[in-house]
Amino acid sequence: MIQFPYRPRWLSRSLLCAMLPAALCLQPSVASEFEEEDLRIARELRELALTRNGGFDVVEDLTTRIGPRMAGTEADARAVAWGEALLNDLGFDRVWLQPVTFPTWHRNLEVARIVSPVEFNFAALALGFSPATPAGGVEAEVVMFDDLDALEAADPTEVEGRIVFVRNRMERSRDGSTYGPAVRARSVGAQLAAQKGGVAYMIRSIGTSTNRFAHTGTQRFDVGVRSLPAVAISNPDADHLERLVAGDEPVRLHIEVDAEYVEAYTSHNVIGEITGSEMPEQIVALGAHLDSWDVGTGALDDGAGIAIITEAARLIMQREERPKRSIHVIYFAAEEIGLWGGRVWAEEHNQAGTMPNVQLGAESDFGAGPIYAISARVSDEAWPVIQAIQAELAPLGIELGGRSASGGPDFIPAAPFGMAAVDLRQDGTHYFDYHHTENDTLDKIDPEQLAQNAAAYAVLAWLSAQSPISFGSGPGLINQSR
Amino acid sequence: MIQFPYRPRWLSRSLLCAMLPAALCLQPSVASEFEEEDLRIARELRELALTRNGGFDVVEDLTTRIGPRMAGTEADARAVAWGEALLNDLGFDRVWLQPVTFPTWHRNLEVARIVSPVEFNFAALALGFSPATPAGGVEAEVVMFDDLDALEAADPTEVEGRIVFVRNRMERSRDGSTYGPAVRARSVGAQLAAQKGGVAYMIRSIGTSTNRFAHTGTQRFDVGVRSLPAVAISNPDADHLERLVAGDEPVRLHIEVDAEYVEAYTSHNVIGEITGSEMPEQIVALGAHLDSWDVGTGALDDGAGIAIITEAARLIMQREERPKRSIHVIYFAAEEIGLWGGRVWAEEHNQAGTMPNVQLGAESDFGAGPIYAISARVSDEAWPVIQAIQAELAPLGIELGGRSASGGPDFIPAAPFGMAAVDLRQDGTHYFDYHHTENDTLDKIDPEQLAQNAAAYAVLAWLSAQSPISFGSGPGLINQSR
Repeated sequence: MIQFPYRPRWLSRSLLCAMLPAALCLQPSVASEFEEEDLRIARELRELALTRNGGFDVVEDLTTRIGPRMAGTEADARAVAWGEALLNDLGFDRVWLQPVTFPTWHRNLEVARIVSPVEFNFAALALGFSPATPAGGVEAEVVMFDDLDALEAADPTEVEGRIVFVRNRMERSRDGSTYGPAVRARSVGAQLAAQKGGVAYMIRSIGTSTNRFAHTGTQRFDVGVRSLPAVAISNPDADHLERLVAGDEPVRLHIEVDAEYVEAYTSHNVIGEITGSEMPEQIVALGAHLDSWDVGTGALDDGAGIAIITEAARLIMQREERPKRSIHVIYFAAEEIGLWGGRVWAEEHNQAGTMPNVQLGAESDFGAGPIYAISARVSDEAWPVIQAIQAELAPLGIELGGRSASGGPDFIPAAPFGMAAVDLRQDGTHYFDYHHTENDTLDKIDPEQLAQNAAAYAVLAWLSAQSPISFGSGPGLINQSR
Repeated sequence: MIQFPYRPRWLSRSLLCAMLPAALCLQPSVASEFEEEDLRIARELRELALTRNGGFDVVEDLTTRIGPRMAGTEADARAVAWGEALLNDLGFDRVWLQPVTFPTWHRNLEVARIVSPVEFNFAALALGFSPATPAGGVEAEVVMFDDLDALEAADPTEVEGRIVFVRNRMERSRDGSTYGPAVRARSVGAQLAAQKGGVAYMIRSIGTSTNRFAHTGTQRFDVGVRSLPAVAISNPDADHLERLVAGDEPVRLHIEVDAEYVEAYTSHNVIGEITGSEMPEQIVALGAHLDSWDVGTGALDDGAGIAIITEAARLIMQREERPKRSIHVIYFAAEEIGLWGGRVWAEEHNQAGTMPNVQLGAESDFGAGPIYAISARVSDEAWPVIQAIQAELAPLGIELGGRSASGGPDFIPAAPFGMAAVDLRQDGTHYFDYHHTENDTLDKIDPEQLAQNAAAYAVLAWLSAQSPISFGSGPGLINQSR
C-alpha cells in the first residue's frame, strides 16, 4: 500500500493519480482503507459532538418558533422559510428549494363518545384524509373486531349500519418492527369497513402510550374510492370501550368529524450543500422531514431528525478541512401524508441521471433514541467501507447490522432507482409513546441521546464523503436484499 | 395478665367484667395486648387480602359504569345510587344516606392559546369555580411570575390589564409534601391577581407529569370577592410559554372560559355499617370519597380509595367472627370542591355528642401506591395499640410513623372535635402524574398494590374494632400534635 505521508493538503490522492502513469498509482491494497487523517477527523468529530447538545437548539427553535407544521398549512410555509434561513445562516455553500406538490387534508373537529349504556367522551383524533361526517355526526351501535383480519373475514351483515371498531394493540419493540403489522388497521381499515357497509370507523391508537393521547396518521387515500369518517381513540379509552362491549347491553357511539380535503398545495424540500472539494457531483444525502402532524409540536417526529442532521453538517462545516464529496442536508416536505418530498427528490435524481452520484441516502426519522446499529444496502465492494465506518461508530455503542436498509421513509422512493442506503438504527422503545400525538413535544428529547445521534451522523457523513470507493448506487442495487 | 382461653364466644371480656366485682376483673397488664384469636384473624385477613384483587372489581365497575362523577352532576346522583346498591349487595348490616348540600361549578369550555408572536394552542383546563370570561374570551399580554410570592410582591402597574401567569413547578415526592406549597398558586392566585388588576389568570399545572395533561382543582371561593377566569396549562405547555416569554417579543394570550356556578346541590354520603357485636355504638370509620373531578374517570382519585375500604370491609364481613366495635365504610360526597361530605359527617357526630365513640377515622385518598407507614393521632394510652397494629402490618412493608395524623381530607373537619385519626401513608411518587387530569383512568391502578392497601385497611379495621381500649377521641385530642 502506498502512503503519502508528506503529501501537501492540496495534493489529493486522486489528483496525484491523475498526474501519474496508471501503473504507478496503485490503489490501496484494501479498498476500504481510509486515510489516517480522515479517521482522525472522524474521531474528532465524534468526540466533539458528544460535548455539544446534538442540535437541541435547532429543534428547540423549530418547535417553539414554528410549532406544529402540517404539510399544506400556513406553518408549513413558515417552516420552509425557517429552514432556508437556518441553512444560509449556518454557511452552507448552496441552499435551494425544491418544489413539492401534493394533496393534503385539514382537521377542523373530531368528537367521539359513548352514548349508551353510559355516556363517555373519548380522547380521539381523526385520521388523516378522513372524510367529514354529516353535520351533527353519526350515531350507531358499535361492532368490535380483534384486528383487520377479523374485519376482512366478517360477513357484511355484521357490519352494515354499524360503527366499526378495530381493537388491535401495538406492542412495544426496540426496532419499531411492531408498528408495520399494527398500522394496517389505520391505513386501510376505513375503506374496508366502507365496503362492508359500516357508517364510521374507529381504531385503538397505533401507539404504545398508556396515557390518554390518541394517535393520528395518514390513511391510504384513493381518489374515488369510498371511505368512512375515521378516528383513533387512546389506549385507555379503547380499554374502557372494550369493558362496556363485554357487558350485556349494546353500546352506541356518536362520531363527528369535520375536515377538508385539499387537492393541491405546493411546499418545498429545503436543501443545503457543503460542496465537495474533489468530487462535488457526488452526494452524501442526509435527510429528515420538516413537516409534522398538526398535533403536538413535532419534536420527536421529526424535529429531532432536523436537529441531528443539521448538527452533523455544522460539525463538519466548522472544520478547516473540506469533504471530498458534497454533503447534502435535505429537509423533506410532506413526509407524513405520503412521502411527497422524497418522491420528488428521487424522481428528479432519476430523471437527471444523477442517482449513481448519490453515495448514500440516510434519513433520521425515528425520534431521539440512541443509535445501536448501522445497516447498509451497498455494493459488495463497499461493504468493507461500511465495516470500517462501524469501527469508528463502535465507541458510541453502535454495532454492525445487516445488509438491508431503506435509508428512512423519504428515501424509500429512491430504492427502485438503486440508491445506496444506510440506516443508523435508533432505539425506538419509547418512540411510539409520543409519535403522532399531542404529546410529541420538546421535553421528550434527551439532549445527550440527541448528541449521540449527531455524533454518529457526523462520522457517517464525513467518512462516506471521504470513502475511497463509491457505495454503488445504480441498477446493481435495485431490489437488492440480503 | 388474665387469659380466658376457654371462654365461650358469647362471653366477651367486657361482659365478663360487667358480671364480676371490679377488683376481680383485672385489666391485662399491657393494655395494648390483643387477644391471640384477634391477632390470628388479622393475619388471616392480611394474607387472604394479598391473594385477591384489592377491590379492583369495585373501581373497575365505578369508573366504567359511572365514569367521571363531579359533585353536583347527574353522574354524582348515579354514583350515590351505585354506592348504596353496592353496600346493600355486599351485605352490610345497615346502609344509609347522609344528605350533603354544597355550592358547585360546571365546566362548559376552556380555550387558552398564544396569539403572538407565534400561535399555539395550550392543553388547558379551567380551575374549579373559575368565572366565565366574556363571550369570545379575553386577549392581553402575559406577565410571568416565578411563584405566588413574586406575584404578591409585584407592583399593580406590572399586572394591570395583563394575563397573569405563575410558573412555579411542583416537585416530585413520596409523601406528597411538595403539593401543599405548590398548590397555593392554584387556590388563591386568581383572587390575588384580580386585586392587582389582572384580566385573567393562568398557572403551570400543579402536577408532576411531563405529559400534556392540564391539572384542574378547586380554588378558594369567597362569595362576593372578585376573582378572575383561571386556567392551568400542562407542564410541557408551560415550558413552551416560558421559552417564548424569554424571547424579545411581547407574548399575547387569548383565554376563554365558559362555566357555571351552582349555588346549592344536595348529594349524599353513603354509609355502610358492619354492626359491632359488643360495642356497636363505637365506630371504626373508614372513608374514601365518591365524587371525582369531571375529567378522567376518577380512578386513582378516589375510585382506588372506594375499592380499598370496600374490599377491607368485604374481607371482614366474609368471616364468621363479628368485630366487637362497628365498622363504617363511608363514601364521602363532594370532597373535591370543599370537603363537604366530611364537614357534614363531623358536624353531625359533634352535634349528636358521638365523636368520642369514633375509635378512629382513616380515609384512603392518595391513589393506589403501596402503604409504607402508619401514623396516628391517638391518646398516649392508645399508642401502644397502634404499635401492636403496626407489628401486624410490618409484613406488608409498613413501618411505624409518627404521632400526628389527619385521617385524610374528609376527616380534617373532625379534627377540631378531637377525633382520633390514623394515616396509612401511601407512596405518592407517581400520584401527581395523574391527579386531577384527563389521564386518571383505571389502567393506572396496579391490582397488586391495591391489594396491599386493602390488606392494611383490613388489619387496621379489624384490630381497631377489637382493641382493648379506646383510641381517645374527645377533647383531649383537640389540636394534639407531637
